[in-house]
Amino acid sequence: MVTMTTTVTAAGVRAAAERIKGAAVVTPLLENEWLNQRTGGRVLMKAETLQHGGSFKFRGAMNRLSKLTPEERARGVLAWSSGNHAQGVARAARLFGARNVIVMPKDAPALKVAQVKAYGGEIVFFDRYSEDREAIGRRIAEAEGLALAPSYDHVDIIEGQGTVALEAAEQAAARGLSFDAFVICCGGGGLTSGCATILEEISPATEIHIAEPEFYDETWASIQAGRKLTADITKKTLCDALATPSPGDITFDIMRRRVAGGVTLSDDEVAEAVAWAFKYLKLVIEPGGAIALAALYHRKLPTEGRTIGITLSGGNVDPSLYATILGRFG
Amino acid sequence: MVTMTTTVTAAGVRAAAERIKGAAVVTPLLENEWLNQRTGGRVLMKAETLQHGGSFKFRGAMNRLSKLTPEERARGVLAWSSGNHAQGVARAARLFGARNVIVMPKDAPALKVAQVKAYGGEIVFFDRYSEDREAIGRRIAEAEGLALAPSYDHVDIIEGQGTVALEAAEQAAARGLSFDAFVICCGGGGLTSGCATILEEISPATEIHIAEPEFYDETWASIQAGRKLTADITKKTLCDALATPSPGDITFDIMRRRVAGGVTLSDDEVAEAVAWAFKYLKLVIEPGGAIALAALYHRKLPTEGRTIGITLSGGNVDPSLYATILGRFG
Repeated sequence: MVTMTTTVTAAGVRAAAERIKGAAVVTPLLENEWLNQRTGGRVLMKAETLQHGGSFKFRGAMNRLSKLTPEERARGVLAWSSGNHAQGVARAARLFGARNVIVMPKDAPALKVAQVKAYGGEIVFFDRYSEDREAIGRRIAEAEGLALAPSYDHVDIIEGQGTVALEAAEQAAARGLSFDAFVICCGGGGLTSGCATILEEISPATEIHIAEPEFYDETWASIQAGRKLTADITKKTLCDALATPSPGDITFDIMRRRVAGGVTLSDDEVAEAVAWAFKYLKLVIEPGGAIALAALYHRKLPTEGRTIGITLSGGNVDPSLYATILGRFG
Repeated sequence: MVTMTTTVTAAGVRAAAERIKGAAVVTPLLENEWLNQRTGGRVLMKAETLQHGGSFKFRGAMNRLSKLTPEERARGVLAWSSGNHAQGVARAARLFGARNVIVMPKDAPALKVAQVKAYGGEIVFFDRYSEDREAIGRRIAEAEGLALAPSYDHVDIIEGQGTVALEAAEQAAARGLSFDAFVICCGGGGLTSGCATILEEISPATEIHIAEPEFYDETWASIQAGRKLTADITKKTLCDALATPSPGDITFDIMRRRVAGGVTLSDDEVAEAVAWAFKYLKLVIEPGGAIALAALYHRKLPTEGRTIGITLSGGNVDPSLYATILGRFG
């Protein structure tokens, strides 16, 4: 009998780091003088835009795939995702030669769809305004004997994503720094809860903050309410990567205990940060991946004299949207 | 009496590396699976787009400023530049609190002009189709007692730029790799001759190649002719950073001995590489900074089974031009 653990631990994050070593990119922790000047602090940016597949998602996917049995991998995996997790799973599966089926919204960015295909993923489209991706995914997985690689609410995924903060803390320590706060782009909470777990061990004083898009700020609302609330998923947002209906069960339990604050950013605020990153960081960041940067850029958090880590979570943005953003804010 | 040395040495590059340590960003050496797949080799990209001022130019400028006497620095420095060198000099001068006057073409990218101003540079504009920037610069420098910080033909500048290859070779060695070839974005040859000098010591078998834009490929033509030729500077190019009239004297002497090959890229070929870097590298690279990448992307050089280092020299591109490039090639 297989016992499924739902306990995310710092040791689990460290084990994940060993498991994905060599396969995942050790992304740079960047600092920018203009941002430091603007915030009055030191902002250390973990550039997961430079990860395989263009976002941090490969870490969790690789950890999950590594922990499957050879028999499970031989049957293949299934994931549902707006695109970044899809790419992470497709790339990890390819490394193992495993079949992978990805359930993606019809309106996912074309670039994300193209890259999942390039990694060999089999895509099943759904309408995210009228259909339930989870129901579709579970049905296919059961019918075809595929293991699930959930996009956030799974211990292996969460522990894999936690390696972002583990690496960032080690890179900061190598410069004699530690984080007063760590600000995370938050959708379903996989990255947030993984990072919160490892930072609790490494530097318990580090405040964990989340940044969420307007209409999809149900995680901070849930934490304040003490129970899981649901976003209105008919609302449009630039941050497609963060348009999750609600936090996960596992992730919510961690986040309600560990998250000290949440900020909400409008599409325009995020787009301005995307354009600023173009000009001053020379990094392509997708809106959902730039929301923690936007929180600091717009000074939604105390920064003066503090050392703050942030995630630049992903860079998969369609050229046409990016050009539009540059036209308005560049 | 001050003796001015014109001999660029590997020891000089190493000394420059010590001098700029802590001030310059140790930029990451990036690798991308799609590019490796496309080329059949391993391409290691030195991302100087992430350097202070958005290009490698800060390295040479910082080395030059560091070597001035306190009296010289107190009077200030002057440079002429299309923009990247200008930013490098302005930023280095600011670190020393030194006055800096920058002679820039009227049609320099607005972003470059804005950033020079942000660093506190005093800008003197000239018309690059009808005026001689060098004559203007020398006149002002003499009248106001300013030290020159030439954009490429100076031993301190060249040795500073050579730290790009020194760092890249060390980063490659840490992964157990060395370069079969090193491909450099080439304007006046400061970066090329500095990199060629240090690589000659570290790995003499590394072939040095240059990539130049159409109409401004006078360096490789000069090397083949055995004498300095001049470009027609009335021609337009997307690669403003590389639109130099001819190689320098010092740089030409080094390059004619060390450069094994040169390739010429059209505006469209460069723009396609800029758009590809947007989608797959998530890096903002200006046309002139993407020309070595374009050389590999378009397979202008043998790459199969080889480890090739390239410079991503700069990322200072105007948003409107970038949006246009994405519209055509994204």
